[in-house]
Amino acid sequence: MNCFEGQAADAARVESVRLSSDEKSVVIIDQTQLPGKMEYRILSTAEELWEAIYKLRVRGAPAIGICAGYGIYCLARQIGTEDEQQFRKEFSRLKDYLDSARPTAVNLSWALDRMERVVLSDSGRTVPEILGLLREECRSIHREDIEMCTKISEYGLTLLKDGDGVLTHCNAGPLATSRYGTGQGPLFLGKERGMEFKVFADETRPLLQGARLTAYELQKAGIDVTLICDNMAGMVMKNGWVQACMVGCDRVAANGDTANKIGTSSVAVLAKYYHIPFYVLGPTSTIDRNCKSGEDICIELRKPEEIREMFYREPAAPKDVKCYNPSFDVTDSSLITAIVTEKGICYPPYTESLARLFEQA
Amino acid sequence: MNCFEGQAADAARVESVRLSSDEKSVVIIDQTQLPGKMEYRILSTAEELWEAIYKLRVRGAPAIGICAGYGIYCLARQIGTEDEQQFRKEFSRLKDYLDSARPTAVNLSWALDRMERVVLSDSGRTVPEILGLLREECRSIHREDIEMCTKISEYGLTLLKDGDGVLTHCNAGPLATSRYGTGQGPLFLGKERGMEFKVFADETRPLLQGARLTAYELQKAGIDVTLICDNMAGMVMKNGWVQACMVGCDRVAANGDTANKIGTSSVAVLAKYYHIPFYVLGPTSTIDRNCKSGEDICIELRKPEEIREMFYREPAAPKDVKCYNPSFDVTDSSLITAIVTEKGICYPPYTESLARLFEQA
Repeated sequence: MNCFEGQAADAARVESVRLSSDEKSVVIIDQTQLPGKMEYRILSTAEELWEAIYKLRVRGAPAIGICAGYGIYCLARQIGTEDEQQFRKEFSRLKDYLDSARPTAVNLSWALDRMERVVLSDSGRTVPEILGLLREECRSIHREDIEMCTKISEYGLTLLKDGDGVLTHCNAGPLATSRYGTGQGPLFLGKERGMEFKVFADETRPLLQGARLTAYELQKAGIDVTLICDNMAGMVMKNGWVQACMVGCDRVAANGDTANKIGTSSVAVLAKYYHIPFYVLGPTSTIDRNCKSGEDICIELRKPEEIREMFYREPAAPKDVKCYNPSFDVTDSSLITAIVTEKGICYPPYTESLARLFEQA
Repeated sequence: MNCFEGQAADAARVESVRLSSDEKSVVIIDQTQLPGKMEYRILSTAEELWEAIYKLRVRGAPAIGICAGYGIYCLARQIGTEDEQQFRKEFSRLKDYLDSARPTAVNLSWALDRMERVVLSDSGRTVPEILGLLREECRSIHREDIEMCTKISEYGLTLLKDGDGVLTHCNAGPLATSRYGTGQGPLFLGKERGMEFKVFADETRPLLQGARLTAYELQKAGIDVTLICDNMAGMVMKNGWVQACMVGCDRVAANGDTANKIGTSSVAVLAKYYHIPFYVLGPTSTIDRNCKSGEDICIELRKPEEIREMFYREPAAPKDVKCYNPSFDVTDSSLITAIVTEKGICYPPYTESLARLFEQA
């Protein structure tokens, strides 16, 4: 595996995943090295791709999907047979192997399935023809994500004014997606258009995505960012420094209740108390219409070690003390000012406004 | 300096400072070694005492005062002159030296001044007589703190029911004070009386006093404690697991606005939203009657390094990213259900109820 330290081609733009110009490898930013080192990795073999996904060198649902699409395309080019049957067999083997890197990452399976459908549809094509279609498909996956992030960012930007203070929680920016991101998308798009924001990034314990990733991305884009501990968000709001809160989402119920990184619901309660609008941003694919309300959302509980010792030189808590470590919380829809999707902005009552998004399609 | 690992005499009781049985030294729990190691330190010389206070081996305003009182008494016994004049002179020199260890620690000066007044009042006493009075005085400082903490804990305990879930923030327990503490005092007193609580301790970023000290003290006392990140407090409340919030205080304004560790005001906002009582506990000495409201309280801003890199194996944020790091925040009196002091429990309106405390005296 090759890696090199460097600057992004466009220094102000973080590009988490791309296809190399010779189309033989995928180039990723190794997110495990951030924020200390900006290191690119060139992934050319199945083992390198698997390892990068497994070890979270590439993370964020959309970024994983894009990486998997480009990755299986590069591997397909290396299969080296003109026999269609043999090609399909080998493709499926590679696909299953990559898919095993993170069994719970929905976008990984989704992107690989989408690529496989190209190979499986219509027999009778030559291998070079199939490769041509695969090339189109992985580029589409990437392009569609850029378009979706751009639309979400466009809609979100209409909710902000030049000079606004914006508070964010966790990370839903360029590293996790493509181009602008979702939760932090309007900040990057606005910056490109010459707008200035004062952003407060919650560090987001226990995994510190806000400190490690959001602060990094915003600073790199030249956006005025101030890092705070999660427990400082209330004081920053009380000081009058925040005109809007913007967060991403992991799952939105039909009634608008929103699961997102732990701590999000507390930010929403504080925002309500201090009369600050609270916006959720994400693609319509995160709206789960089979899920009636937040009560139906199951919350993953993670290991106590993340709170007691991870990142630390030595454990910061008694060795065996009990911890409660939910990965997400659910923000009640009554605390959400608007939900911003690539199809438009939804306002309460959400049961109606979210349903309308799907009628359009 | 001697030190030894060990168990407290009463295994369930943490005693942060005591006078050795031969009255030649002060024995402290080295708080810088917690929670990894329970190490006692025996402080016999002026240099050892100074270093322990300077390096925060002993911390918490009351604990520092008690340590300084016992410390200067031990040093006074070593002066080794029968000449009263010479004794006073040497005493003042030692007092000034100890006082220089933490110039902003009010209780350090307060305790040393109190000890010096004994030496300076009424000339004509013999040195052994003065030493006898000093012995009484330092024991009084300790005893009075125990009495005060006990009374606060007694009053606080009337606000809890057996089996209650209690959420705490930061540390105001036995390590910072004597015996029960203030903010967490009712938990320890209740436990002694056979009551059981389910305590949720906020880890309290950036300095992690909740993880390092509160979780440690509670666990040692056999109290059911669960450590959470600060951003999980809202979810724990939403789950219905919290029947009361209890915190200490650094300064209370005449109208009840309360300065305490950063994050306290957010806990209060969340408690209000989830209809959970929010209690502030502290001695009447923290009520500043010259301070009309929270707006008059100046908040100390601390270094960005505490957020970006302290405790971590490697920095968790971009090296030069801006941070906002206030040490305290002010909780609006409208969010406080009651303020518990050693003289009784005050309810809103606080301007009247707090003033009444001083009329009694």
